[in-house]
Amino acid sequence: VGARSCKRFSCKAIATAEKGIGAELYVDAAPGSLLRPGVDSGNSIKAKFEKVIRDAQDSICKSIEDIDGTKFRQDAWTRADGGGGITRVMQDGNVWEKAGVNVSVVYGTMPPEAYRAARGATSAPGSAKDASAGRVPFFAAGISSVMHPKNPFAPTMHFNYRYFETDEWNGLPGQWWFGGGTDITPSYLDEEDMKHFHGAYKKVCDRHDPSYHPRFKQWCDDYFLIQHRGERRGLGGIFFDDLNDKDPETILKFSTDCVNNVVEAYCPLVVKHKDDIFTPENKQWQQLRRGRYVEFNLVYDRGTTFGLKTGGRIESILMSLPLTASWMYDMQPQPGSPEFELLDCCKNPRTWV
Amino acid sequence: VGARSCKRFSCKAIATAEKGIGAELYVDAAPGSLLRPGVDSGNSIKAKFEKVIRDAQDSICKSIEDIDGTKFRQDAWTRADGGGGITRVMQDGNVWEKAGVNVSVVYGTMPPEAYRAARGATSAPGSAKDASAGRVPFFAAGISSVMHPKNPFAPTMHFNYRYFETDEWNGLPGQWWFGGGTDITPSYLDEEDMKHFHGAYKKVCDRHDPSYHPRFKQWCDDYFLIQHRGERRGLGGIFFDDLNDKDPETILKFSTDCVNNVVEAYCPLVVKHKDDIFTPENKQWQQLRRGRYVEFNLVYDRGTTFGLKTGGRIESILMSLPLTASWMYDMQPQPGSPEFELLDCCKNPRTWV
Repeated sequence: VGARSCKRFSCKAIATAEKGIGAELYVDAAPGSLLRPGVDSGNSIKAKFEKVIRDAQDSICKSIEDIDGTKFRQDAWTRADGGGGITRVMQDGNVWEKAGVNVSVVYGTMPPEAYRAARGATSAPGSAKDASAGRVPFFAAGISSVMHPKNPFAPTMHFNYRYFETDEWNGLPGQWWFGGGTDITPSYLDEEDMKHFHGAYKKVCDRHDPSYHPRFKQWCDDYFLIQHRGERRGLGGIFFDDLNDKDPETILKFSTDCVNNVVEAYCPLVVKHKDDIFTPENKQWQQLRRGRYVEFNLVYDRGTTFGLKTGGRIESILMSLPLTASWMYDMQPQPGSPEFELLDCCKNPRTWV
Repeated sequence: VGARSCKRFSCKAIATAEKGIGAELYVDAAPGSLLRPGVDSGNSIKAKFEKVIRDAQDSICKSIEDIDGTKFRQDAWTRADGGGGITRVMQDGNVWEKAGVNVSVVYGTMPPEAYRAARGATSAPGSAKDASAGRVPFFAAGISSVMHPKNPFAPTMHFNYRYFETDEWNGLPGQWWFGGGTDITPSYLDEEDMKHFHGAYKKVCDRHDPSYHPRFKQWCDDYFLIQHRGERRGLGGIFFDDLNDKDPETILKFSTDCVNNVVEAYCPLVVKHKDDIFTPENKQWQQLRRGRYVEFNLVYDRGTTFGLKTGGRIESILMSLPLTASWMYDMQPQPGSPEFELLDCCKNPRTWV
C-alpha cells in the first residue's frame, strides 16, 4: 500500500501510527487473501473488492511487463492480526523509468477525530468529541499506482481505487464508501491522446451514471491543483471520494469498471509514443514537469502528507515520486511553444470530450 | 528574498499575502538602499544589517564567480512603499549546478496571531487575541543562499541570516531578534572537511559566546531532521532563532561574523573536491541525497512551506531546490560502504570538533 490508496487516510500509516496493528512481516509469496480468515465473509463487499484489486494488480502489471519487457519486483507482507500489502515496482525498465502498483488491505481502529475527518464535517457524529468515546474500528483496501515513462512524449499516469468501512460505533451505524480516480500527466499535449484517455473514462462513467463524468472530471481538475503555482500537475481524468449514494454492489461495479479500464485508457498512449524521437530540450522539459509532480505530492497530496507525518511505510508512499526530476530558476516557456501550450492546459483545464 | 530568509516567516510571503505592500516593480539596477528614505536612520540596526547582508551578497557571489568562472544572473525589484529584493542565481555553471544568493528587505503589518507565532507562545502578548486589536507593523531583512555543486564529492551548502523588528503595538514595546545559520550537506563523508567547516563556525561562535556553538550546533541537528526518514538532510552546522538576549549591536556583530565566514568555511571544500574523479554510482547517490533535500524543504522547512501557502515569490522560494534530483525504490546502501557511512552520520549526528 501507499498512502495513495486512501487520499484522506494512508491506511498503512494509520495502522502503523496507531500501533493497534503489529509490525509488517515480509513474506515470500502473497497469501491468497489478506482478509481475516473466518471473520470476513467471502461474499462481502470487502472480499469482492479485494478480489477486484488483486486481479487488477495482476492484469495491469502483466500488460505493463508485456510492453516494457521487464518484470516487476514484488514485496509482500502480512500482519499477524490480518491484512497486509503487496508492492510491485519496476525501475529503470525499457519503457518506464519507474512504475509501481500497490495493493493493501488494512484493519485497525482510528480515533474519533480521524473518523470525523474521513467522513467530512457534515456526516460526522458531533456527540462524541473526546477520545474516551473509544476508537472506531475500520477496514480499508486499495490499489494505487504511478507510472513514469522514459520518453518525454509518453505521459505519466496515476490511479487509485479504495474501499473504506467502519463498524458500528457508539450506537452509530457502520459507514462505507468508495473513492478513487485515474489521471494523466503528459509533458507535451497530444489532443488525440487526451480524447482517447478522457473518452475512455467518459464511456466508463456514462455506463453507470450520466452525472458521474462531469462531476468527477471537475473534481479531478480541482484536486490536482498545485496551488502555489496556479497550475495542475497534469491534464486530469476522474477523481471521486465518499461515494456511497447507491447500494454498495452498484458502486463496486462502477469502481471495478474504472480500474479494469486503466490499461485500455493509458497503454495505447505509451505504445504510440515510447519510441518517439526527442531532443535534450524535450527531456529537460519532462524533468521540470516531474519536479512539479514532486511538488504536488509532497506539498498537497493528502495521502502522502498524512502518511509521511504519521509513520507509513515510506518506500511505498514515496514510490510515486519519479526516478528523476529537475528544478530550474524562473523557467518560462516561449509563448506559442509546445511547452507553453502544455502549461496553458495545466492552468486552464479544457474539456477534451 | 526567499521564504528561507526567515525560517518562521517568509517575509516576501507575508508582504504578498497581506496585500499591505504593493506589487513588485522589477528594476534594472538594485537601489543603493532598500530602506524607507527619510524614515529609517542610517545609524539604525536596520540600516547596519542591510549593509552587512548586501556587502555579504556581493563578496560571496564574487568568491563563487571566481571559483566557477560563471557570472550570477540578477533579478532586482523594489516596492513603491519601501523595501525590495535582489535575487542572484547561477545555473549550470562549471562547478555549481545551481547557486543562489537572495537579499530582501520587507516592511508590512502582520496579524496578531502571526506575531504570536513569530515570537513564540511564551513571549507573546496574551491580552490581544482578536484581529480587532489591529495589525503589528514589522520590518524584516535577510540573506539566504543554497549552493549545489556538480561534483558528488563537493558538498551542498545553505546559509541564512535575518533580522526582524516589530514596532510598538497596543501598548507593548517593540521587539527585535536575529536568526540564522549555515549548514553543510555532503553526499560523501570527508572527516577533514567536516572538521574544517564545523571548526570554522566553532571559532566564530567562540569569539562571541562560548555557549553558542554547542547550543546552535544541536539546534541545527534538530531543525534539519527529515522526520519520516529519521535522518537529517545533511551534516549540520549552526542554527539559531529569536536571539535577543544581548544588546542588538552585540548580536549584529555575531551575525556579521557568521555571514562573513561563509566563504572561508565552505569554499575550500569545493575547491578541494570540484575536480574529483567520480563514477556514475557516485553521481546517482548524490541525486538521491538531492531528493532528500527536496523532501526536507517541501515537507518540513517552515519558511518554504509557509511561503508556498501564503503567496510568496515562488521562484525565489524554490531557488533552493536542486537542478536535478532522484528517487529510487527502497535503495539501501551496503553496510560498510561510503554511502552507508554518510547515511549513518545523517541518522546519528556526530561531534566534529
